[in-house]
Amino acid sequence: MSYHSVKLIKRPELEITEDIFNIVTQDIPTPAEGEVLVKLSHLSLDPAMRGWMSADENSYIAPVKLGDTMRASGIGEVVKSNNERFPVGARVMGLMGLTEYAISDGNGLNVIPKELPAEAILSVIALPGITAYHGVFEVLKPEAGQTLIVTAAAGSVGSLVGQMAKNLGLTVVGVAGSDEKCQWLTKELGFDHAINYKDADFVEQLTQATPNGIDLFFENTGGLAQGPIFERMNPHGRIAVCGLIADYQKAEPAPGPSWVGIIKRRLTIQGFTMPDHFHRIPEYGQALGAMLGKGELKYRAHVIEGIENATSGINLLFDGKNTGKLIVKL
Amino acid sequence: MSYHSVKLIKRPELEITEDIFNIVTQDIPTPAEGEVLVKLSHLSLDPAMRGWMSADENSYIAPVKLGDTMRASGIGEVVKSNNERFPVGARVMGLMGLTEYAISDGNGLNVIPKELPAEAILSVIALPGITAYHGVFEVLKPEAGQTLIVTAAAGSVGSLVGQMAKNLGLTVVGVAGSDEKCQWLTKELGFDHAINYKDADFVEQLTQATPNGIDLFFENTGGLAQGPIFERMNPHGRIAVCGLIADYQKAEPAPGPSWVGIIKRRLTIQGFTMPDHFHRIPEYGQALGAMLGKGELKYRAHVIEGIENATSGINLLFDGKNTGKLIVKL
Repeated sequence: MSYHSVKLIKRPELEITEDIFNIVTQDIPTPAEGEVLVKLSHLSLDPAMRGWMSADENSYIAPVKLGDTMRASGIGEVVKSNNERFPVGARVMGLMGLTEYAISDGNGLNVIPKELPAEAILSVIALPGITAYHGVFEVLKPEAGQTLIVTAAAGSVGSLVGQMAKNLGLTVVGVAGSDEKCQWLTKELGFDHAINYKDADFVEQLTQATPNGIDLFFENTGGLAQGPIFERMNPHGRIAVCGLIADYQKAEPAPGPSWVGIIKRRLTIQGFTMPDHFHRIPEYGQALGAMLGKGELKYRAHVIEGIENATSGINLLFDGKNTGKLIVKL
Repeated sequence: MSYHSVKLIKRPELEITEDIFNIVTQDIPTPAEGEVLVKLSHLSLDPAMRGWMSADENSYIAPVKLGDTMRASGIGEVVKSNNERFPVGARVMGLMGLTEYAISDGNGLNVIPKELPAEAILSVIALPGITAYHGVFEVLKPEAGQTLIVTAAAGSVGSLVGQMAKNLGLTVVGVAGSDEKCQWLTKELGFDHAINYKDADFVEQLTQATPNGIDLFFENTGGLAQGPIFERMNPHGRIAVCGLIADYQKAEPAPGPSWVGIIKRRLTIQGFTMPDHFHRIPEYGQALGAMLGKGELKYRAHVIEGIENATSGINLLFDGKNTGKLIVKL
């Protein structure tokens, strides 16, 4: 029996083009001692994948080697097992790649409950959820009454960040790229304000939405919104730098704001990436599951069907055209 | 009897020019209940004064009001006292301004020992010392074996930062603006390397001086050195942003590095200014006094005579022409 997987065969120049991938058909392998064979049911498409494709050896995680299966997280079922931690039938999640079947030695693999829909898991408990959770609770450390702003607020991470902050009693402002997304944020997710960064009067709207300035800034995008938000940071404000999706496909990323503001406002700016904190997934997952169970976190998934559509699907993230957590259903 | 003081009468446009000050002669006042009269002996000229002159209400400390005595720290002797905490004859230090005499209600005033030379106090225990101490111990939190780089390394703050780090067992690289300063850093202060940022091969020298990258960056200048240093930061590196003297006299400060590097290297960048931490002066002063007593901190003072030379003296800081802590002896 055979299966399909997506190999990375070229580094992207700037944009992700179809020719950097090759979909191959291979025989389904047999797990060795200590290994399991997982049949994937859902794959997650995340902005971080753009970084994993590039050749930068200095980044936080080694680039995907050319010829290897493209890295991605996903959910599947153990169908053959030589590892007692993951018996046949167990539902598992991990960085198994853009593939229909994967062999795993169990490293980085987590068993997940069967009750929750895959969309809920990939939207809330997987990479987006643990990223939002870490950024909010470990980096920004919010306090009730503060004002938090988040960019790519309708994205898989941003929408969770804003909801967590609302649940903690903060005033939450979201920045997104369409009026539809903004409406979803305020009407469905309970954000106090949502601003379309493409509006000509963005800076004015931002000023009106943050009469007491901004205490906490969860940065997912970079781009035009960054400067005006930075200008409204309050003394002792904190900035979590999680993503700069506006810059990932540029030859030369845009410069950041002058550091004069960092001194004058005594800001703390902290970058983070989740592979440093993967050991905390069980803890974060439990907290996120509890929030989900209490109905505190809403999400929406944007589901694509079939592995053959995964590679073109990634670009929806960079065009801002996805309407929710981007998931490939196999 | 009369005395002289320097009033700020205009905001500087870019550079500090003589016409923004007025030296006035006034009668020596009498302290009211709870107040003391201090006869200043030494005034401190610091880069922070540039910020205090400008109109930016959003900065960390209110600007000096037009017509008021220019803010500056200094040392003096209590000559009349209606405050039992500061008896006549006590030697005191505080933000008393560019003046020969000052009235103080004791707020922010600290009694200092009479044994130490005024140059040692203003160079090591006053603003430069507490700034270096706070930045090193509270912001950068160095560990033996790490590599620390400091800009304006021959300046009053930078020279102390580097010595503290050397005493803690770090590899220390200083960046300064002349070969003479660089020699002082390596030959007299024990820095491992010192690099003149004006050298054409600055980036090459920097690379050679930091074979293991840079863990900690104490930023005093901004300017040309910032980008190349940022590029050599190690994962989880920390940056203390203390000053940007290269930018203070520009109409538009230079942009900072792209935040992509903040994510990839999971950097923490923290701005700080000392007025937030003035309540810790007694604690820091004691620690600095102990270091000084053990001969762990060398310094050099650049002494100007007479209050009438204070205003032109400030510009030595911005030209990089001072050779040590800039002090006005009255």
